[in-house]
Amino acid sequence: MAGAEAEAAFRRVYGTLKAELLRDPSFNFNEDAIQWLDGMLDYNVLGGKLNRGLAVVESYKLLKGATEPSEEEVFHACILGWGIEWIQACFLLLDDIMDNSQTRRGKPCWYRLPKVGLIAINDGLVLRSQISWIFRRYFSGKSYYTDLLDLFNEVEFQTTSGELLDQITTNEGRKDPSKYNVHVYRHIVEYKTAYYSFYLPVACALLLFGESLDNYVQVKHILVEMGVYFQSQDDYLDCFGDPEVIGKIGTDIEDFKCSWLFVQALERSDERQKEVLLENYGKSDPACVANVKDLYNELDLQRVFSDYERESYENLISAIEAQPDEAIRAVLKSFLHKIYMRRK
Amino acid sequence: MAGAEAEAAFRRVYGTLKAELLRDPSFNFNEDAIQWLDGMLDYNVLGGKLNRGLAVVESYKLLKGATEPSEEEVFHACILGWGIEWIQACFLLLDDIMDNSQTRRGKPCWYRLPKVGLIAINDGLVLRSQISWIFRRYFSGKSYYTDLLDLFNEVEFQTTSGELLDQITTNEGRKDPSKYNVHVYRHIVEYKTAYYSFYLPVACALLLFGESLDNYVQVKHILVEMGVYFQSQDDYLDCFGDPEVIGKIGTDIEDFKCSWLFVQALERSDERQKEVLLENYGKSDPACVANVKDLYNELDLQRVFSDYERESYENLISAIEAQPDEAIRAVLKSFLHKIYMRRK
Repeated sequence: MAGAEAEAAFRRVYGTLKAELLRDPSFNFNEDAIQWLDGMLDYNVLGGKLNRGLAVVESYKLLKGATEPSEEEVFHACILGWGIEWIQACFLLLDDIMDNSQTRRGKPCWYRLPKVGLIAINDGLVLRSQISWIFRRYFSGKSYYTDLLDLFNEVEFQTTSGELLDQITTNEGRKDPSKYNVHVYRHIVEYKTAYYSFYLPVACALLLFGESLDNYVQVKHILVEMGVYFQSQDDYLDCFGDPEVIGKIGTDIEDFKCSWLFVQALERSDERQKEVLLENYGKSDPACVANVKDLYNELDLQRVFSDYERESYENLISAIEAQPDEAIRAVLKSFLHKIYMRRK
Repeated sequence: MAGAEAEAAFRRVYGTLKAELLRDPSFNFNEDAIQWLDGMLDYNVLGGKLNRGLAVVESYKLLKGATEPSEEEVFHACILGWGIEWIQACFLLLDDIMDNSQTRRGKPCWYRLPKVGLIAINDGLVLRSQISWIFRRYFSGKSYYTDLLDLFNEVEFQTTSGELLDQITTNEGRKDPSKYNVHVYRHIVEYKTAYYSFYLPVACALLLFGESLDNYVQVKHILVEMGVYFQSQDDYLDCFGDPEVIGKIGTDIEDFKCSWLFVQALERSDERQKEVLLENYGKSDPACVANVKDLYNELDLQRVFSDYERESYENLISAIEAQPDEAIRAVLKSFLHKIYMRRK
């Protein structure tokens, strides 16, 4: 119940932010543009699980411990949370174009709408620059303002670098699949997903709480590890999850993605199996996709994954228990319990 | 000669910045990724006229007046100049994809290279986030650091908003060309081009010089006016310029662009001419393009443009002469003289 209330409060802040963006006097755009932005924001920023954004609010409350946060503090935590939801919307919108994806969050991808097309690229940039606008509006002059801008800039740098590595590896991997291995996989995932999905929400909460991020390097490491584990789940669900539940039809096999499953399969294949894998991976023919999935089953990857899942959990719990601060342990555990054994 | 020396010094700073970006220890990417970035930067950041970047250095020197700037000051001005070249590279790279363009700066557009394709979208984001990385590396802790981040964020917001308005107007204009008029044209151009091309270089120089931008609202207005005039030239050259000289083949007519020429033609057409215009504008058939160009000539738009050019110049000169500060007048005049009557 507390969760539902917190989410409702969080959603109300979205309405406030959107209204302020649309009526910005320095923006001063015509009705067509305002309508476009309104629809674009609802379509791309909403519709997800809001995990990352809500995590800022929850983390902040846990950092406060027994002290009730003020209304203004919660409001600010919500704004930071929406900053993450906005940057995520930007990344997903653009990734979908690059990956030629069909659906996202149970709807056609934004760029697939006939009226949108490649204008979606600029919409991605608009989303990014709206974050700066929102932060300046609410946080300019605060002691943590510059650190906040630096944080988002750094995470954007890491995420786009991860995406770059992912795209290049996929390009090169087509010619030489030995370029795909556990090491490269980890590198891509750490940059592309872990920083913005796991480190960023906690870092936002810490800044709002008045902390210097330099003192939380260990916490960062743990969150990045969690992010790597989370992405492995994502890759697993892309193939073995229920499209109705995860809200999209996975295309990692068709797209020759450097997926956790593919990397594990390559490591576990004998010569014959490797041949099947390389002959069928990265093709859109449904028969080829089925051959890859059969091989994944032959290699018992569902069991391999569930072993990996348990092991990751145990390692993370030990690392968390070694943290001296109780509130920090609570924050980290709350993250871990949200993703452990998730099915969507 | 001084110009050539200044440009050579400016170019050397590019080499320094690129080398630092590629060997960033927190980046720590493999040879494939480093090679990609190296080639992507050279292809997209270089090859232009560097006007905007060099303008920061020149403006800064003019602000210093008789005092010789230190080596470090010039170095910092160059870095800010490259920040603008980098953001321009990001905008152009992405605009070319949205506009389905063929060539840029005399070469195929980056996304047209077979090995690149839509990875170019992420490269655009990489370029943007590299600016933040560079600024943090060199300016973190400086008194103007936060203002500098705010400035680039604000200009990015304005530019992407302008591009949004442009794209929407082009969409709506296809259904109802009366949506195109001088007022809408000005609005698009002010946001899409003027802020980043004209205001941004001077604002960078002012920040480095220790000034608060709040005290330069009039200067901003003048520079925005210059930007509007500059874009009108661009639109004119898209149709009447020499593709060999301007380095690209204009497609404004084919793309149904809200161009200065089209807006002027609509205003000056009788019913018959308007019919010809609306029947032929926005079609890729060369015969249709030729019909539009014939009509532009029938309406004597080359003369209309040269009248507009002279009038703009006179208005700008009066506004500049009304500025109390001599150094500021020198900065503004230097900009104006660079663009007046340009043919590329």
